[in-house]
Amino acid sequence: MTGHQRVRDDEGSAVRLLALSDGVFAIAMTLLALDIGLPVGLDPDGFEEALADVMPSVWAYALSFVVIAAFWRGHHQLFRYVEKVDGTVVKLGLLGLGLIALMPFPTTLLAEYGDLSSSVAVYSGAVAVMGVSQLALTIALWKRPWLAGAAPSERVRRNDMADLAATALVFAVAVPLAFVSPTGAKLWWAVLIPVKWVLGERGNRLRAAAGGDAGA
Amino acid sequence: MTGHQRVRDDEGSAVRLLALSDGVFAIAMTLLALDIGLPVGLDPDGFEEALADVMPSVWAYALSFVVIAAFWRGHHQLFRYVEKVDGTVVKLGLLGLGLIALMPFPTTLLAEYGDLSSSVAVYSGAVAVMGVSQLALTIALWKRPWLAGAAPSERVRRNDMADLAATALVFAVAVPLAFVSPTGAKLWWAVLIPVKWVLGERGNRLRAAAGGDAGA
Amino acid sequence: MTGHQRVRDDEGSAVRLLALSDGVFAIAMTLLALDIGLPVGLDPDGFEEALADVMPSVWAYALSFVVIAAFWRGHHQLFRYVEKVDGTVVKLGLLGLGLIALMPFPTTLLAEYGDLSSSVAVYSGAVAVMGVSQLALTIALWKRPWLAGAAPSERVRRNDMADLAATALVFAVAVPLAFVSPTGAKLWWAVLIPVKWVLGERGNRLRAAAGGDAGA
Amino acid sequence: MTGHQRVRDDEGSAVRLLALSDGVFAIAMTLLALDIGLPVGLDPDGFEEALADVMPSVWAYALSFVVIAAFWRGHHQLFRYVEKVDGTVVKLGLLGLGLIALMPFPTTLLAEYGDLSSSVAVYSGAVAVMGVSQLALTIALWKRPWLAGAAPSERVRRNDMADLAATALVFAVAVPLAFVSPTGAKLWWAVLIPVKWVLGERGNRLRAAAGGDAGA
Repeated sequence: MTGHQRVRDDEGSAVRLLALSDGVFAIAMTLLALDIGLPVGLDPDGFEEALADVMPSVWAYALSFVVIAAFWRGHHQLFRYVEKVDGTVVKLGLLGLGLIALMPFPTTLLAEYGDLSSSVAVYSGAVAVMGVSQLALTIALWKRPWLAGAAPSERVRRNDMADLAATALVFAVAVPLAFVSPTGAKLWWAVLIPVKWVLGERGNRLRAAAGGDAGA
Repeated sequence: MTGHQRVRDDEGSAVRLLALSDGVFAIAMTLLALDIGLPVGLDPDGFEEALADVMPSVWAYALSFVVIAAFWRGHHQLFRYVEKVDGTVVKLGLLGLGLIALMPFPTTLLAEYGDLSSSVAVYSGAVAVMGVSQLALTIALWKRPWLAGAAPSERVRRNDMADLAATALVFAVAVPLAFVSPTGAKLWWAVLIPVKWVLGERGNRLRAAAGGDAGA
Repeated sequence: MTGHQRVRDDEGSAVRLLALSDGVFAIAMTLLALDIGLPVGLDPDGFEEALADVMPSVWAYALSFVVIAAFWRGHHQLFRYVEKVDGTVVKLGLLGLGLIALMPFPTTLLAEYGDLSSSVAVYSGAVAVMGVSQLALTIALWKRPWLAGAAPSERVRRNDMADLAATALVFAVAVPLAFVSPTGAKLWWAVLIPVKWVLGERGNRLRAAAGGDAGA
Repeated sequence: MTGHQRVRDDEGSAVRLLALSDGVFAIAMTLLALDIGLPVGLDPDGFEEALADVMPSVWAYALSFVVIAAFWRGHHQLFRYVEKVDGTVVKLGLLGLGLIALMPFPTTLLAEYGDLSSSVAVYSGAVAVMGVSQLALTIALWKRPWLAGAAPSERVRRNDMADLAATALVFAVAVPLAFVSPTGAKLWWAVLIPVKWVLGERGNRLRAAAGGDAGA
């Protein structure tokens, strides 16, 4: 190793970073649902009313669960061939976990105050920042091929980065939009449904085509 | 791979989906018990009274723990020989986890308002949907033998599917029954005890018989 | 396999049961500490007072942490050579986890109402039942040597069982004792300190002596 | 093994201690954020005000997340080559987890009462004790080379110990300082930023230099 090369610090196997990540994802997913609850000691009529009022919490839970699950799936793909980590990957990985762990808060905002601009803006901003963080991790791993045992094809990688960039962009645009119209911003989120469907189908085809080459 | 074959997308090893699943199961199991508690600052008499009132929470906890533990045991059997996952298996697996993570809510309903029809109906519906979701995952894995290193015998598989279908059916029937009689619906759940006992014994025998063939 | 032999049902590798167990132990350990907290919005004097009042919660946390950590350590030893599980081991393992997950409740009782007989009795009873449950698991694994890759020496096993039996016995005796004197029952718990120290030292010696034979 | 040698008790593989540790770290990281929340049922003006008031909680979360993440990273480095554990390592490891699990409490103190001396002192003391605990674990592993498959270079080890000692020292000094000036103590914490940056860069260089020798 000559003096002009970048220092390749090496923090060992990726196994524990992935174990920690799966733990944080699992706990964030489960804590999201803790917000769903009823007051104690209602009479039957008050109970029925409160049960109906619980639906916004259920929707906010379902939305955030889908968001976190999609990030987990991307994280799973991203680390598929990664065998080792260095300091930068560990730091970016931990930053991403810190953002995932925050998600129960914007989810509660959306459940309780979903018609207010600030709630929708905070939620959108949180998801956009998560997308940027996962994109930065993707780029860091792309620039460190020596950490991986095999490489996904260039086209699979570009497709995954387009998916993350689209997520970050749509939610970032929703932040100012929320101050014009909270409902408009929430409808704008739905733009991601066809975008992610198309990119997902394309990713499946690319991965299937690569399946014969790269092995497990 | 010809153009007429289904695309076999491949998202790599099953290890992390199982780690995430075990995390969600473990957290849901533990959060169930968080509902059990007493108010602070009671005098000794009030304390004894409140301690006696805590028993419905303990029963609801025990019931939900048994339900989640039974689903975990089924999940463990289901993924026993599975080595790889594809997009469909990941999505169905995540959907199942989203339902498991919800369980603390119907458990609290049952503990606090267990004599009201809606509580019993919501609880029954949640368990029925979990059963349908795990059944869908079982069928998806059955149709993708290339994801597994070995196959359970056809008879073991059919027995496991019968177990899940019975669970889903009994709890689905309990939903309308709860509106006739909440207590009746809860007694009806007990139908599953002999059903699962018979199917469990049969599964043990089938698995023991297969043990000599399939190895690990 | 002849008709007279017991059916050896086989539910596969122990890996996931241990992952689930470590998850439940980790969550129970961490949730214990959630009880430690102060009300919001106190003035500086009220804050100092509330901070002093928090000490019983800290002691109850420390005690329950030590109890759960000791059970985890025993669980770790118990499954050291176990490679596979069957239905009975899975069921007993899950039962133990259900009891571990309950521990935050008696811990809160002890923190908030530690001078009342019922609190000390409930706490003692919970620990005694956990001890019995882990003892049952130890015996079940002892009777199923085919599930393990190697066996701990008979003397190590007897020492571990004596440790669990002593724990269960001391806490079981504390249940009626608590109704005579809650403080007396808590002092009685301290009997375990020398008992566990002697058995622990003996276990270390036995394991060290066996280390040359049984390998990793 | 002669009678004069220390008894080398052996509690088997490090795998489960690391799984339990990653679980506790992940849960503590995620529970930190649970403190961030708003009251239910505010009107739009009250909501904006409450949202602004939430910032101290967000900062306290970010700080504690960074602290716990740094301890996790040190723990990851520490156990990199460790393959087996003995009783002392298990006990010190569990003690460290008990302190990590406590962190949500001082974090809440800092968020709610960050201008009071006692809060800053409790927070500083908690982090200092965690540093001492991890340092003790580092020394215990250093004295037990037979537990590791390979050894980090002596210079890497000394660098890691300097990092932990600096953390413990800075936070220990902050405890009395907090009673002189809470703000001064919080500014004093920032001394760690350049210290940890220098030691971190040095550690990266040392590890990179060792990378060619010690392998994965």
